[in-house]
Amino acid sequence: MTTVTDREQQVLERIDKARRRKPKVKEERITSAHGAGGKATQTLVEAVFLDAFRNPALEPLGDAAQLTVGDTRLAMTTDSFVVSPLFFPGGNIGDLAVNGTVNDLAVAGATPRHLSCGFILEEGFPVEDLRRVVASMTAAAEAAGVTLVTGDTKVVGKGTGDGCYINTTGIGVLDPDRALGIATARPGDAVIVSGPVGDHGVTIMLERGELDIVADDLESDTAPMHELCRGLLDAVPGVRAMRDATRGGVATILNEVARAANVSVVVDEDMVPVRDEVRGASELLGIDPLYVACEGRLVAIVDGDKADDAVAALRQDPLGTDAAIIGRVGDDPPGMVLIKTAFGGTRIMDLLVGDPLPRIC
Amino acid sequence: MTTVTDREQQVLERIDKARRRKPKVKEERITSAHGAGGKATQTLVEAVFLDAFRNPALEPLGDAAQLTVGDTRLAMTTDSFVVSPLFFPGGNIGDLAVNGTVNDLAVAGATPRHLSCGFILEEGFPVEDLRRVVASMTAAAEAAGVTLVTGDTKVVGKGTGDGCYINTTGIGVLDPDRALGIATARPGDAVIVSGPVGDHGVTIMLERGELDIVADDLESDTAPMHELCRGLLDAVPGVRAMRDATRGGVATILNEVARAANVSVVVDEDMVPVRDEVRGASELLGIDPLYVACEGRLVAIVDGDKADDAVAALRQDPLGTDAAIIGRVGDDPPGMVLIKTAFGGTRIMDLLVGDPLPRIC
Repeated sequence: MTTVTDREQQVLERIDKARRRKPKVKEERITSAHGAGGKATQTLVEAVFLDAFRNPALEPLGDAAQLTVGDTRLAMTTDSFVVSPLFFPGGNIGDLAVNGTVNDLAVAGATPRHLSCGFILEEGFPVEDLRRVVASMTAAAEAAGVTLVTGDTKVVGKGTGDGCYINTTGIGVLDPDRALGIATARPGDAVIVSGPVGDHGVTIMLERGELDIVADDLESDTAPMHELCRGLLDAVPGVRAMRDATRGGVATILNEVARAANVSVVVDEDMVPVRDEVRGASELLGIDPLYVACEGRLVAIVDGDKADDAVAALRQDPLGTDAAIIGRVGDDPPGMVLIKTAFGGTRIMDLLVGDPLPRIC
Repeated sequence: MTTVTDREQQVLERIDKARRRKPKVKEERITSAHGAGGKATQTLVEAVFLDAFRNPALEPLGDAAQLTVGDTRLAMTTDSFVVSPLFFPGGNIGDLAVNGTVNDLAVAGATPRHLSCGFILEEGFPVEDLRRVVASMTAAAEAAGVTLVTGDTKVVGKGTGDGCYINTTGIGVLDPDRALGIATARPGDAVIVSGPVGDHGVTIMLERGELDIVADDLESDTAPMHELCRGLLDAVPGVRAMRDATRGGVATILNEVARAANVSVVVDEDMVPVRDEVRGASELLGIDPLYVACEGRLVAIVDGDKADDAVAALRQDPLGTDAAIIGRVGDDPPGMVLIKTAFGGTRIMDLLVGDPLPRIC
């Protein structure tokens, strides 16, 4: 049973009121929060992009659009990568760009097939760095079983870029018999993560030297999850949805689940796998690790009766050895994510406000 | 018959020698020339990207990759847009981004279907400008019969972007019975352009105020060419290839044709449609209009016997009313483009060196 305090009840009412309003961008200018994956991003997407482009493929706002082209069911997804720095422990912008798009296809239940890549290079960017990035993309594509089939290169002047930005767009083949989607989550479902959260985001922050700590063993979890996803789908019939927990982290995804399915999600803080280094750095940053980006972790919403089977299936894959059930879907309060803290309390885990971790991917 | 002077013969030998070498990027750092679409871009693409990503879909380096996904023949293409300024007579970065990708699909013989869009916004970019860009994208997508099905937004700090960059990636359905490709050009084929060249590039340069002239009537030719392409293909059986003449202009495409098919291309300067304003501005810029970007003009290589039918078919479309035969494919000198000037001479029209028109698209 979820306990909602008076204060939480007030928050609930405020949010409910906000949701009945048409989303509206109040700011006159773009701020970093519009790119952070939280509340401002959601408002921008809904008020500007969705309102203009409105079509059935776009509206679910999933990780990938689901399309029928010719006789084939396809998934299509796009991501631009602006991570800073370009090179970091565990990877660089190149493998991040390939894995990120591969993962958006994989969690949609698609078999990733082909990727495009568009480079925006700043004048003066070292050609040798570009070669390293491209070599990582090649290796990542091979590991994920995708081909890089078309590309584009633009160059911008000094001070109008930052070395190298990469867009990757991917297409994959959908299984026509499988319908995944966060809107299908229902009370009783389990919330599962495939491994420790926040590794990527904290690695980037430490690499920037913005925190006065060193964590030698920590590295980005960037990895292609196509086999992890396939293994789960093949092993367990009750998978409702999968998402990869990038910008905004696990907490943001759970908020999207709660809203899309009009359910509650209750997370048990004690059950969330977090590395000590990530926990420590997150405390210094004043951010919950559940909001920190991963680049090789999925969140799965699975029929509660199949939850143990799902965890067992995930643990078969090297990327899922630390998979864990971290929470449950409920019916009240609808549209909300609550977290039961280690100290026995319950608090609301709302969408991120502002941008505590800029240019994380 | 083509006359090749001694000087030209020397150039020929030098180029032939260069082509036998493995392409190699000599610069240590990226320069604007690497993004200009000419010689430096070609070397970068061949030496860095193609060498690493090597696969059958990428290697033809066409406007779009040709793929088989499931049971469907697809074309896929990507383009990042960094045009400066964002708004210009005849359009803005939004419709340019939609039309550019639609055209890459259309000239590949595909029916454009779905587009992704990835925004990289600079902090401080006016939300109202974003709305205008998005509104133009919506209108352009509707005109081209495509849907914008998936998107992404990243925000970068001040001084690491320039307002708004947009990547669009598109997929379209290929007719399995139609094989187009510049490598199929053969001696006797006609070279056709669908209208006046260079309007877009000169419009951008004038809008930047870099030339002390005003041309009130001139505007970008940005437009979707899907119907123009379809009309030509349906009317004439002997179409070998179509390309849209963007960065690097018609001259760059003809060089690609000459290399890919190992043929010569001889252009008759008198026959090239060029508006007076474009001719005047090009003279001031010291550039041949044949190198200046268009955003709504195609180059078609067509069986010589069908050339008049092809021109007639193009002229049926509002975008093709000024279509003209501008040259012929020959066999000697292979790999070269020559232009017969208005004064009776012949000169080599090689790939562009440097970047006379930066950030044109």
